[in-house]
Amino acid sequence: MTYKEKSKKFLSSANVTIGDTVKISKNNTVYKGILLDRSEDAEDNYIVIKLDSGYNLGINITDASIELIEHGDKPSIGYEETEVSKDPEKMNISIISTGGTVSSIIDYSTGAVHPAFTAGDLLRANPELIDLANYDVKALYNILSENMKSKYWVETARQIASDISDGADGIVLAHGTDTMHYTSAALSFLIESPVPIVLTGSQRSSDRPSTDTFLNLINSVGAAKSDIAEVTVCMHDKLDDNICALHSGVRVRKMHTSRRDTFRSINSEPIAYLKEGNIQSVTGHYNKRNEKELKLHDNIEEKVGLIKSYPGITSELIDYHIDKGYKGLLIEGTGLGHVNEELIPSLQRANDEGIPCVMTSQCIYGRVNMNVYSTGRKLLEANLISGEDMTPEVGYVKLSWALGQSDNIDEVRKIMETNIAGELNDRLSAKYFLN
Amino acid sequence: MTYKEKSKKFLSSANVTIGDTVKISKNNTVYKGILLDRSEDAEDNYIVIKLDSGYNLGINITDASIELIEHGDKPSIGYEETEVSKDPEKMNISIISTGGTVSSIIDYSTGAVHPAFTAGDLLRANPELIDLANYDVKALYNILSENMKSKYWVETARQIASDISDGADGIVLAHGTDTMHYTSAALSFLIESPVPIVLTGSQRSSDRPSTDTFLNLINSVGAAKSDIAEVTVCMHDKLDDNICALHSGVRVRKMHTSRRDTFRSINSEPIAYLKEGNIQSVTGHYNKRNEKELKLHDNIEEKVGLIKSYPGITSELIDYHIDKGYKGLLIEGTGLGHVNEELIPSLQRANDEGIPCVMTSQCIYGRVNMNVYSTGRKLLEANLISGEDMTPEVGYVKLSWALGQSDNIDEVRKIMETNIAGELNDRLSAKYFLN
Repeated sequence: MTYKEKSKKFLSSANVTIGDTVKISKNNTVYKGILLDRSEDAEDNYIVIKLDSGYNLGINITDASIELIEHGDKPSIGYEETEVSKDPEKMNISIISTGGTVSSIIDYSTGAVHPAFTAGDLLRANPELIDLANYDVKALYNILSENMKSKYWVETARQIASDISDGADGIVLAHGTDTMHYTSAALSFLIESPVPIVLTGSQRSSDRPSTDTFLNLINSVGAAKSDIAEVTVCMHDKLDDNICALHSGVRVRKMHTSRRDTFRSINSEPIAYLKEGNIQSVTGHYNKRNEKELKLHDNIEEKVGLIKSYPGITSELIDYHIDKGYKGLLIEGTGLGHVNEELIPSLQRANDEGIPCVMTSQCIYGRVNMNVYSTGRKLLEANLISGEDMTPEVGYVKLSWALGQSDNIDEVRKIMETNIAGELNDRLSAKYFLN
Repeated sequence: MTYKEKSKKFLSSANVTIGDTVKISKNNTVYKGILLDRSEDAEDNYIVIKLDSGYNLGINITDASIELIEHGDKPSIGYEETEVSKDPEKMNISIISTGGTVSSIIDYSTGAVHPAFTAGDLLRANPELIDLANYDVKALYNILSENMKSKYWVETARQIASDISDGADGIVLAHGTDTMHYTSAALSFLIESPVPIVLTGSQRSSDRPSTDTFLNLINSVGAAKSDIAEVTVCMHDKLDDNICALHSGVRVRKMHTSRRDTFRSINSEPIAYLKEGNIQSVTGHYNKRNEKELKLHDNIEEKVGLIKSYPGITSELIDYHIDKGYKGLLIEGTGLGHVNEELIPSLQRANDEGIPCVMTSQCIYGRVNMNVYSTGRKLLEANLISGEDMTPEVGYVKLSWALGQSDNIDEVRKIMETNIAGELNDRLSAKYFLN
């Protein structure tokens, strides 16, 4: 029996349909909620109900029983599109959706979350946005960000460049949060932009009282209208429920699985803070609007490995990547940039075969320095490239991009050692650590 | 020419020997400092000088020139051993050194750092320690912590158990900082202890004005004398230059490449804070002295892989680990515990072949929850084990240990889902995030 058939059988056992309020019993626990629509088209053994708390809960139907409490309406998917007229006095903001929680809208009849995403949907769900700008809204993808790949980064960069050429005064990119910091780094290298490119996401869907969707969207629109012509990530800040931090796209990282203030600048401060769609304060340097001309550098090498060092790692893992034809390796070492010494001959071999290896640190914060200890000096002898104060994620993205610009190991080294988008900072950044 | 011969030739060009003050010119930059002794036995192209600032600097001698400024004394390695008598009124603390910066002592005649480590050395270098306890000091290893392996964890656990059996009232384990949190987690699972086991290290060697060696040692001795019979990490705290934090060995992580306050409790508070060798405040629950009997569970599986998910990862990497005979896989996913969906069939294959796969998050902070999104639910269907609120590093160590206790995948799952040493916490730990 397929998952779909199993699910159908389970639901028909109590004659329930989508939108009904149901009671599910399993392992002596009873769950009560509204049956959500993915339950009828199950891809796995789970059905999903929306609890009174607003949380969605997936329940494995094996050994579970279901009971009808009250009939409800089946959700109507999608809304009627209404024409939104453009005001020539307002800036033109392009909102591009790639998927993720932020791109979802809620169907209030059932509480189900849908990926429907049109200009009309967006503005109906967030009416406070309407007065701020003219919008061009498009859904480029509808994928969960854990499924993002470098080819999507390139396509997104091209879409953004096309929108800017068509007159967009700023870009808001709605993105799942899991890999938003990889994508923000990629766009930082792929595009030189005269206008702001702001990535935003959501840690809680808009059906939950604690949602950050609206706060993040309104401040992202504010950032996209601002003078800060950088690739940035605009997300809920730590200090105040009304404030968003605007992080450099090459200085930011998702640091908590579930909190709304999960995104943090690493080794730097956020560029700015926003409140109610306005810049509140600016703390960092940035490229101003129209300082740069629009340029695309849209080649990227897919075959780059990210290898995290750990006590049981063997040199065979490095050899595997060489033998599989990887073009570059990002090493996530320990401390100041170390690995078990047994790995060094294989790293030397990678270098000898023209495969650049870049060292970063799994400490996350701080700067790699391979001059201090003997292991580091041996790694320098093996021609490891220092990732300096880049996070492993930014180092990985930059190496992928550098290998898209050149397949010569010396030129790749030069690119890695040159600051392109604010990812390398010569000044002592150790003061920007956890409080 | 070998490195040693090259180095010798370079030094003899200016007739300089170890201990001399020299001037080295390279690429139009001049470095002045005291020539340190590893320069005569070079394993690479680097010689090392100690700058006036107290920092050691490695200089690649290719295209460099050297000049003698002033002759100095060659260091005498090692000290004369003096007998330290034991006071029956004092507690007996066993100090075990495994290597790393903290185990080094300084030869003031040259500024060179030596790994010499005896009771006499230690007490001469840190005379304030003498009054605090009777000491038994041994150097178990002298290795850099990036070279630590699980078999050393087991040997260390056995040495600690033997010292406790011989009457030690507390253990201080001096360890390199790079992988100290892996070792602290390992010891947490390998030993049940009636007395404190305190790991400590140093981010700055004792020859530097900013050294944290003494602060960390005196507070570690204080923690080893205390009632907190846990495996802990005692390192410089963030708030005050005089205070150390005492972190649970399964809740701590090195979070900065160079800062002295690099170790942070993740998803919890430190157990206690210490000042001048005394407990200042206690914030968490702990097992009290003599609550547990000494027990060793000293089997560990070496063949466990740690795989960090990233946008370019392919299922082939999972298959590689299966084919290479890995017994378990620790996955460092994104967000709430996700990977690219394309990996799921290979993870399912691992499970089907009896290889447990445990999911943790590269966010570092927070808790894995695979019930929220469809990718997570598919991973649960593929029998991924949730690492809950463990860091990837602790999850890796625990999986290695669990596989040492049983080779049955269901029993390993049960062990992973059972709290052994404080590594799993059912309560909401989201409040313990970065400030």
